[in-house]
Amino acid sequence: MAQQIADLRDIEFALFEQFKIDELSEHEIFADFNKKTIKMIISEARQLAVKEFIPTNKPGDEEGCKFDSGEVKAPECFHRIYDLYKEGEWLAMADDPESGGGGMPYSIYLVANELFMGGNLSFMLYNGLTHGAAKLVETFGTVKQKELFLKKMLSGEWSGTMLLTEPEAGSDVGALTSTAHKNDDGTYSITGNKIFISGGEHDLTENIIHPVLARIEGAPAGTKGISLFLVPKYRVNDDGSLGEFNDVVCTGIEEKMGLHGNATASLTLGGKGNCIGTLLGEENKGMRAMFVMMNEARQLVGQQGFSLATAAYMSALNYARERVQSAHILKPKEGGVPIIQHADVRRQLMIMKAYVDALRSLIYFSGVVFDGARVSQDQEEKYALERLIEILTPIIKGYITDKALEVTSHGVQVYGGYGYTKEYPAEQYMRDSRILMIYEGTNGIQALDLFMRKLRMDNGKPFLDFLARIQKTVENAKACDSLQNLAACLQDALNRYQEITALMGKTAAGEKILNAVAHATPLLEVTGDITTAWMLLWRATVATEALKDNPKKKDVDFYDGQLKTAEFFIKSMLPITIGKMNAIANMNGAVVEISEAGFGGL
Amino acid sequence: MAQQIADLRDIEFALFEQFKIDELSEHEIFADFNKKTIKMIISEARQLAVKEFIPTNKPGDEEGCKFDSGEVKAPECFHRIYDLYKEGEWLAMADDPESGGGGMPYSIYLVANELFMGGNLSFMLYNGLTHGAAKLVETFGTVKQKELFLKKMLSGEWSGTMLLTEPEAGSDVGALTSTAHKNDDGTYSITGNKIFISGGEHDLTENIIHPVLARIEGAPAGTKGISLFLVPKYRVNDDGSLGEFNDVVCTGIEEKMGLHGNATASLTLGGKGNCIGTLLGEENKGMRAMFVMMNEARQLVGQQGFSLATAAYMSALNYARERVQSAHILKPKEGGVPIIQHADVRRQLMIMKAYVDALRSLIYFSGVVFDGARVSQDQEEKYALERLIEILTPIIKGYITDKALEVTSHGVQVYGGYGYTKEYPAEQYMRDSRILMIYEGTNGIQALDLFMRKLRMDNGKPFLDFLARIQKTVENAKACDSLQNLAACLQDALNRYQEITALMGKTAAGEKILNAVAHATPLLEVTGDITTAWMLLWRATVATEALKDNPKKKDVDFYDGQLKTAEFFIKSMLPITIGKMNAIANMNGAVVEISEAGFGGL
Repeated sequence: MAQQIADLRDIEFALFEQFKIDELSEHEIFADFNKKTIKMIISEARQLAVKEFIPTNKPGDEEGCKFDSGEVKAPECFHRIYDLYKEGEWLAMADDPESGGGGMPYSIYLVANELFMGGNLSFMLYNGLTHGAAKLVETFGTVKQKELFLKKMLSGEWSGTMLLTEPEAGSDVGALTSTAHKNDDGTYSITGNKIFISGGEHDLTENIIHPVLARIEGAPAGTKGISLFLVPKYRVNDDGSLGEFNDVVCTGIEEKMGLHGNATASLTLGGKGNCIGTLLGEENKGMRAMFVMMNEARQLVGQQGFSLATAAYMSALNYARERVQSAHILKPKEGGVPIIQHADVRRQLMIMKAYVDALRSLIYFSGVVFDGARVSQDQEEKYALERLIEILTPIIKGYITDKALEVTSHGVQVYGGYGYTKEYPAEQYMRDSRILMIYEGTNGIQALDLFMRKLRMDNGKPFLDFLARIQKTVENAKACDSLQNLAACLQDALNRYQEITALMGKTAAGEKILNAVAHATPLLEVTGDITTAWMLLWRATVATEALKDNPKKKDVDFYDGQLKTAEFFIKSMLPITIGKMNAIANMNGAVVEISEAGFGGL
Repeated sequence: MAQQIADLRDIEFALFEQFKIDELSEHEIFADFNKKTIKMIISEARQLAVKEFIPTNKPGDEEGCKFDSGEVKAPECFHRIYDLYKEGEWLAMADDPESGGGGMPYSIYLVANELFMGGNLSFMLYNGLTHGAAKLVETFGTVKQKELFLKKMLSGEWSGTMLLTEPEAGSDVGALTSTAHKNDDGTYSITGNKIFISGGEHDLTENIIHPVLARIEGAPAGTKGISLFLVPKYRVNDDGSLGEFNDVVCTGIEEKMGLHGNATASLTLGGKGNCIGTLLGEENKGMRAMFVMMNEARQLVGQQGFSLATAAYMSALNYARERVQSAHILKPKEGGVPIIQHADVRRQLMIMKAYVDALRSLIYFSGVVFDGARVSQDQEEKYALERLIEILTPIIKGYITDKALEVTSHGVQVYGGYGYTKEYPAEQYMRDSRILMIYEGTNGIQALDLFMRKLRMDNGKPFLDFLARIQKTVENAKACDSLQNLAACLQDALNRYQEITALMGKTAAGEKILNAVAHATPLLEVTGDITTAWMLLWRATVATEALKDNPKKKDVDFYDGQLKTAEFFIKSMLPITIGKMNAIANMNGAVVEISEAGFGGL
């Protein structure tokens, strides 16, 4: 039967065959999670996503959120799935049991999230933010703050947000003007206006907990003077019961291109001088605290992009198998065939598949690295794995969300005219995906993060480790006769990539620094392309091995599909990456040199 | 002052400096249209577009079209601009005065259209279709049909459509099932269901004239048995007055991603056996008639894409000049600067500008070629120019609409979070543009048209002429010292392009034909890239010459901007095109060879 959201066979291939995730159960903290249990968990998540979430996706988009006199109603149908999600204890499935979590491997959480977010992203955004906010409490909260908030957030009883952005402080967080006045009892009175707050106000939970960035009176300007506060919508009494309204007023929600089911709120804090927060972490260390959570938040956005991409691929693929239109080009006298038989449609499906397969592997790989760091007893290894995640983060956030738009747009195209209509989900996937390139740091900022920080972090050692891992996959592939040619192509690209990163670094150290900065985005792009080729070649190596064991017909089809996908990407797409690297090598400065007037329009 | 929709300086540069359009006035039929007159016409169009059309764009999107019991209401605010547009006699400004047209050069019509469509595309779609339908009447109509319909359509008193698509006949027009039964009086009774009819029903005009593709009873299957009929919504009496309702019933309109102001109607013809049409052209020659119009219709879609791109560029550019955010990377201690000063934002604006400039030139060039064919006294030259338009058509339709999505998406990104909201026009431009890659033949079909038909048309002579024109620009640039390097880069790309097209042709003639077909879209892409580089190098050559004349400061900025844009595209983008050609050269067949099951999801 046709699958929705994600191909289960491919999920299992990546989890068990590529990454051998079940080996985690050799570690004590994951002992309960053998292959059988993992499959069961995924099957349950899939059931919930397909049967309950998908049917709410379009209604949520059409109904949207309703704002009226400070109150926001989420789409009606979200209430039922919120309860189901909460009852299933999905949100904290991978968190520390001591905090109320389920203690599962993070990798498995990623799979569940893929299914849930592919089913209804607007809905899952409420939960993703709650999780991020809870992690802030877990990491920086006092005993008291944890006691009052943590379990209720991780259980989904209360939801959470992140209050960073202000009208004049978007990418430039340091420009924020929200202030905190210290009260005699150690609490702070908060005043300020925040915008673009996803899930900032809604009726799914009785309380909403806002981590808020604000400046304590007298603190330095810029990011150095920013502190983090915990500000609930309703105050919480010492016994955990709800107290009075905390003067966090929703003044409106945005009309947006997509994600209509999630309320993007404008909030006024302390408009009546009555908004009280408690300090989370240390004074003036708010940015550092946020940065700790940033990796998770940015990875989550990449996962969101991937989830839409896989959902878009599955639906376009199913449509292409069913929709009959035009005769085959070699048999013009015969009748129409399913459009999956037309070369140009296959090309589009193949592009979608290549990214979906590779990006699934990339995301699971980040989970494996995360879990690996968690179980590692070797401090050096643990440190190295944590740095690897930092390298991967801008790739996951920036590259995957770029590709999500591309894949969901191909999804629309495969449907033809129908793809532009609301009769099918294709156009919603595309609309929903467009914000992902912007929020949690625009993709331009991700590119700067990769180039200016991650590549040179610890004198470039983590980056070299990253390259060494790709090299290892190339070596493994070289050892397979049938993959030698593909391995050689990736080797060439990898060699060229090292030259390019060296050139970028050298240019940035000289007087043409701006020319290098102007190439940060192209560099992120080629980094992502090479990562894609890496994951596909890795998959092809695993598939080649598996084919030696005389698998069943169905598995032969699957593994052959893996080989063809790697071949396609490496022969038909990777040469374009080489072209992109040659473009970077020109290190042209026209973008930097053109005068402002030269852009025209005056 | 900041400009909207399109940069007037650039319009005039392309028209007068690059293409010397005013020289057309040397020909008798265009004698009235000297530079001054042309500028006046453009100024009027611009006034109308900026002052009247832009303010209706967002309301039209929000209000959308309303369907109720067979009737469709266009957005309320469209009525006023419809009247203004009609009163200005804009629709037929370039048509034959004998048919009621204004007799202006087609090139000028293109400029007016750029401004109008950039102002409100949903609205202009009604007019574009009316024009296309009127051209069918003008070309194939009997004296009587012209008398009854032509002037009323060209004046905008009545509107027009195109009824091709049916639920099971989209790209495969030949699969249509609408039928025509010949009556004793020579008319035909039409029966059928048509879908995706832009402007198929609305309240802007008292009558709507539908050219309809249908099969006369007993006619052959496929495209060979298709005839074209003229079917008015209300019958037209011999004296031109309106008669009874013609049983063309609107059964609903589509909910779409964008273009909400234009009604995409489903129509049932002859549901009560009472729909009468007259044959337009000859029996069973309907497809041929449609193909005559197809070039104009497809070019129009490319123009639509360009219009959204230029409007998106202007609005993003204006925003980038005003929006202050973050310090300059070289002056981190100083305050925030307008984001146009940030390298990554400049990179995005430059990409937008490069496409907008080049595609404007490409579109005007097609106008110049069209007008050239019209005034040419030399049959051979006329024939060659008409073939050149045929070569350009899939590039204009396919490549420009691909780039329109890319440019409008960059437009969203420049706005950051605001770009995703409906507060600014960016997201609407992107939503509106997404259909352009699909309708009037998907871009995959454009790619097949270029590769399978246009390249080999007349034994490849028109294609060689096309290449020779690019070569000529390269030669002219080589003659400028300062452009030699850029010229050499385009020369390399052009040489490689010729190898690639030869390889594609050779492959298609052999047993790996499907491998070639699977590369039709990449071929269209590189054809478009090279065309872009061609136009930008041409512009740079003109700018270089102009700079020798000691122009005013403002003009120096403009011409320098042209040089930087060409430099950017040729040094930073064209190497990617070479990469794409190297990918094509691999002529990999994975897309063709992968089994259907190998795509997964089963």
